[in-house]
Amino acid sequence: MGVFDFAGGIVVHITAGISALVAAIMVGKRRGYPETPMPPHNLAMALTGTGMLWVGWFGFNGGSALASNGQASMAVVVTQISPCVAAIIWSAIEWFKVGKPSALGLATGAVAGLAAITPASGNVGPVGAIAIGAVSSVLAYLAVTVLKQKFGYDDALDVVGVHGVGGLVGTILVGIFASSLFGGSGQDLDIGKQLGIQVIAAVSTAAYCGVVSFSLLKIVDGLVGLRVQEEDEYAGLDLAEHGEVGYDL
Amino acid sequence: MGVFDFAGGIVVHITAGISALVAAIMVGKRRGYPETPMPPHNLAMALTGTGMLWVGWFGFNGGSALASNGQASMAVVVTQISPCVAAIIWSAIEWFKVGKPSALGLATGAVAGLAAITPASGNVGPVGAIAIGAVSSVLAYLAVTVLKQKFGYDDALDVVGVHGVGGLVGTILVGIFASSLFGGSGQDLDIGKQLGIQVIAAVSTAAYCGVVSFSLLKIVDGLVGLRVQEEDEYAGLDLAEHGEVGYDL
Amino acid sequence: MGVFDFAGGIVVHITAGISALVAAIMVGKRRGYPETPMPPHNLAMALTGTGMLWVGWFGFNGGSALASNGQASMAVVVTQISPCVAAIIWSAIEWFKVGKPSALGLATGAVAGLAAITPASGNVGPVGAIAIGAVSSVLAYLAVTVLKQKFGYDDALDVVGVHGVGGLVGTILVGIFASSLFGGSGQDLDIGKQLGIQVIAAVSTAAYCGVVSFSLLKIVDGLVGLRVQEEDEYAGLDLAEHGEVGYDL
Repeated sequence: MGVFDFAGGIVVHITAGISALVAAIMVGKRRGYPETPMPPHNLAMALTGTGMLWVGWFGFNGGSALASNGQASMAVVVTQISPCVAAIIWSAIEWFKVGKPSALGLATGAVAGLAAITPASGNVGPVGAIAIGAVSSVLAYLAVTVLKQKFGYDDALDVVGVHGVGGLVGTILVGIFASSLFGGSGQDLDIGKQLGIQVIAAVSTAAYCGVVSFSLLKIVDGLVGLRVQEEDEYAGLDLAEHGEVGYDL
Repeated sequence: MGVFDFAGGIVVHITAGISALVAAIMVGKRRGYPETPMPPHNLAMALTGTGMLWVGWFGFNGGSALASNGQASMAVVVTQISPCVAAIIWSAIEWFKVGKPSALGLATGAVAGLAAITPASGNVGPVGAIAIGAVSSVLAYLAVTVLKQKFGYDDALDVVGVHGVGGLVGTILVGIFASSLFGGSGQDLDIGKQLGIQVIAAVSTAAYCGVVSFSLLKIVDGLVGLRVQEEDEYAGLDLAEHGEVGYDL
Repeated sequence: MGVFDFAGGIVVHITAGISALVAAIMVGKRRGYPETPMPPHNLAMALTGTGMLWVGWFGFNGGSALASNGQASMAVVVTQISPCVAAIIWSAIEWFKVGKPSALGLATGAVAGLAAITPASGNVGPVGAIAIGAVSSVLAYLAVTVLKQKFGYDDALDVVGVHGVGGLVGTILVGIFASSLFGGSGQDLDIGKQLGIQVIAAVSTAAYCGVVSFSLLKIVDGLVGLRVQEEDEYAGLDLAEHGEVGYDL
């Protein structure tokens, strides 16, 4: 029915976000959450990883053109613009709200912008990338702060807020910004009709993932359980499940 | 004589493995080995490094086609399949034998699968990649556990077991799986004859490397010695040889 | 007027070096410098970063040909040769002067060689790359040891000595080694005239950057100041400016 999902924002990021939400609720919170702060243990590696992810994403989105052509080039360009805008806006929000922009926030914003541009990357131009990056950053920020706190699920990597919301924003907004009015590739795009198609695709994917993830997790729960023993959780899964420690400095 | 060694499994991995074996025996064990456990000091970097190595390997094997063609594509595909199979099998063996699959084991298995597919990467198809990955994983696991313990050499990075055994497995098995019977590129390949050629290439390379490595190490031993002072070994070579410490957190 | 600056050694590295010098002088020294030693906190990441930078540099210099042709290939080749030569020479100097070649020195030498080959990468051949790598390594070593100590500025990342001096060396020497006499691409290059052009470009860029950086820093100083509070400097900017700590092991 003509859904735009160039590099898999629907099939990767909306699915990931919804499945993560179901899993986070069904598995439950880590012991101590949210009373005990649980920051990333190695921020330098979080930033290195974000950089490597970003570089890989050029291949992912650009390669989805399946050819070395102008569409691939534009996909790479918007894969740079959207996360840049999203990272800057996330930092600005933190600066304004908390007083200090954080490195983790910059990285989180960038990933939200990357997830959001993915479904749109072959159909929008720079203007669309700026809009998609900006909207995804604001909504993802709200999701990982307000929404997560309100509903109380423990999403350690913020997959719901960053990938789910990012993917959702890109999937819907490509219905607008794919139009040649905003520099997109769609010459005579009927924005209203396309928006409807995008929303149907997003909602039906979300519903499907919710049901299937719930069913699979129920089966796993029945077979082996979804949580480790309490003492294993305190010892840490590195040790309990893999017999390893991360660092032996 | 028509040896298959597409991306240098013989000239890189068999040579590395045999030379490492000779060096490990001639240099001798680290003080304290094997009584004191000597785990990798930073497992997170070991995993990051494995990922970067794997990405680089796509360029290495794919680029050995010296053209952007179907052979290059298939080389990249099998460079994904073989380490995946090897990593999963290594984890399964650990799970079965030790009770816990380790992250280091996953990484080690992947590298064994990468080393093994290297000589075969331009001549085999997916079936060959699965077979080569599986066999290399099992034999490399045996090499770094049973063989290393039995012969008592101290191979800190498991170059003998992983690169040597992996390279050997790929070099020999390409003689079978290069046949079009198994989806390889060889239309009328005489498997028996090709196997013989591969074994001769592997054995003669191993013999050459053994002799040359032994001679070079003897010369170095005579000139400057092969081991550092005892106090330097306890202080660590970072400090003793380079005047540096790795971390100043 | 025919300046050679293939991949931006003038517009990236000379500008960076001169601006860094102005900034280091105007911002002033870190408290405790140079009495307290301030080594990099994580040498393993410094080396990983150097490797990733080097790989990216192939894309940067090679891509500056804006085509997949022989010039791009040669740019990649010299981008390998120059930093290799520079890294080896830096290590040799340290070995000779301090008694121990350091890993940080190897990495620093490589970056000097990368900065130096950048403006020359599309115009010189392997001979030019060796010469440029060697000269940049020696002069950058002198800059980060003798020059920095003599003038007493605190250049934490050695941008002046490595990028500035490296970029300057490459910008000037390409005037010689772009000649086909040394395997460069310039068939009838008038070396004397080209050298003059390169020097004028380097000096005028340096003068422009010095004036503009000084002016911009003066404006920033007037608006928000160039230094953090003393207690913030002791606490560390991670905490004071971003509310984060790097490691929570």
